[in-house]
Amino acid sequence: MAPTETLTAERILATTEDVLRRHGAAKATVVDVARALGVSHAAVYRHFRTKAALREAVTERWLDRTTAALRRVVDDRSLPADERLRRWLTTLFAAKREKAGADPELFATYEVLLGENSGVVERHVADLVGHLRLILEEGVSRGELALPVADAGLAARAVFDATGRFHDPGYAREWSAPGIDEAFTAVVELTLAALRP
Amino acid sequence: MAPTETLTAERILATTEDVLRRHGAAKATVVDVARALGVSHAAVYRHFRTKAALREAVTERWLDRTTAALRRVVDDRSLPADERLRRWLTTLFAAKREKAGADPELFATYEVLLGENSGVVERHVADLVGHLRLILEEGVSRGELALPVADAGLAARAVFDATGRFHDPGYAREWSAPGIDEAFTAVVELTLAALRP
Repeated sequence: MAPTETLTAERILATTEDVLRRHGAAKATVVDVARALGVSHAAVYRHFRTKAALREAVTERWLDRTTAALRRVVDDRSLPADERLRRWLTTLFAAKREKAGADPELFATYEVLLGENSGVVERHVADLVGHLRLILEEGVSRGELALPVADAGLAARAVFDATGRFHDPGYAREWSAPGIDEAFTAVVELTLAALRP
Repeated sequence: MAPTETLTAERILATTEDVLRRHGAAKATVVDVARALGVSHAAVYRHFRTKAALREAVTERWLDRTTAALRRVVDDRSLPADERLRRWLTTLFAAKREKAGADPELFATYEVLLGENSGVVERHVADLVGHLRLILEEGVSRGELALPVADAGLAARAVFDATGRFHDPGYAREWSAPGIDEAFTAVVELTLAALRP
């Protein structure tokens, strides 16, 4: 690190992403991160008290980039709600696929957190279900959608569950299988048909 | 084994189930099965040429019992197609839950086959999707259901995928979580709404 640069949490996280990509999720250490930043590992630990805390924070930041892209779809009120829902689901599947295929080391880190029942994963799922709920509520208020169950929160969770094969990391191995795009489209059409007013 | 009894494949499989339940999927051996039958292990190997073949056959028989129960739902033409579909999905979830919770050693054996991409799993899924297809085709021909996609096979697969959280063994740990029944009902209602004519 150039001596004039301040060691911020954000700089540590950006560097940790690089280190994870280069060394692999299993091998990367806090010492590697400190070395890449030109600081002592104690300096890193002042920001993240444990290696696990650093791993959580870097995964959260990585997931939040997907959430931000999806949020832009939620907020695009130029589209009717059904089209927004289709685009949101398509964007989510594409992002998860991209992360699993083109960013395998960060994806592996994410899978470690999944195994640990980390709050990061829970928050990520809550963010995504929250997006679906916004689309559904707005669609209902505009008369563009109808709910198959009484409550928008429950309906949002049902849409999330019903499309799980296309975003749940447990299915990542299937995302390059033949026929997966056709299967995805069929589930999306099923979901949209269920919400038609 | 009483000497007058013939050593059939069926008897070997029934005994293997018992042995798996008693010894556990990781520990049970062909020698244990032979001992329980009072025969040599060579006699068992005359029916099943490898331990893997025996494991596949016992799992298939175990899965086929679920398939047979589900088939009775498919064939119950006293019910309208939407009600049959609801009952079929409810029976499947109950059976998978029961297998995971009350029959953990056989479930663990099944999970081994899942990891091996065994043909047994593929056939089981094909059986289940075939059931759904029959219900959908009959529902459409009676005017009780409409398909959200052009082809009944694709629609059947979409229903199977959309309900995966409630039958895919990868989710078994969630099947005793609070709220799971409410989540299941919501996905079933979503699916039925999508198929309403």
